[in-house]
Amino acid sequence: MKIQNYRQVKGKEELPGVVMHVVAGPDEGVPNFVMRVFELEPSGATPFHSHPWEHEVFIVSGKGIVKGEQSETPLSEGDAIYVKPGEKHCFNNAGNDVFRFVCLVPLIDGKMPGSLSSNTTSG
Amino acid sequence: MKIQNYRQVKGKEELPGVVMHVVAGPDEGVPNFVMRVFELEPSGATPFHSHPWEHEVFIVSGKGIVKGEQSETPLSEGDAIYVKPGEKHCFNNAGNDVFRFVCLVPLIDGKMPGSLSSNTTSG
Repeated sequence: MKIQNYRQVKGKEELPGVVMHVVAGPDEGVPNFVMRVFELEPSGATPFHSHPWEHEVFIVSGKGIVKGEQSETPLSEGDAIYVKPGEKHCFNNAGNDVFRFVCLVPLIDGKMPGSLSSNTTSG
Repeated sequence: MKIQNYRQVKGKEELPGVVMHVVAGPDEGVPNFVMRVFELEPSGATPFHSHPWEHEVFIVSGKGIVKGEQSETPLSEGDAIYVKPGEKHCFNNAGNDVFRFVCLVPLIDGKMPGSLSSNTTSG
């Protein structure tokens, strides 16, 4: 068993204003899927992109928006989002505080799929 | 994409004082893993048990305790817990408010592993 507050786990700035903390991943020897905690500064946004794996997301705090191909939905604490494999999406901070969410992805060939900046298929 | 607040998803009382909301699972057609949100009333506790699959847990609010074979660790917001396959564990509410956490498990043969009450290997 490994127990750690996500704030103790060194974050990686994936993009300006977008920090990812991997709290259960290859370092922990997870067999199937990876848990990451994202913090988006008020200016922070992830790219509008798609990839062959799914996301399962839970909003922890703050105000955000998730955009899809033809949708734009406000998000707040307690919202859960399932993004299907191949579906275009992005998450934006839409408030004045940090927008925080948990986002899980499957392991692909035993590794966490690459960073936000290297796996985009568009913008 | 499916977006829903976990409070809109009908909960199942797994045990007295322990309610589970499945927010991304077989109903959503997830390919790999299932996201559940648990609410433990102040008296609520999960059984001390083990199973062949892992847990990846994120504490959303409240005060709790996770017990292992030889450990007992207080938990609060932002804590992430990785429970290895086969490792004994239980989660107890240790406060006066609802203790809430997200807990993910892999799909097993395309299904979510069974309920807390039917998959224990020890009391």
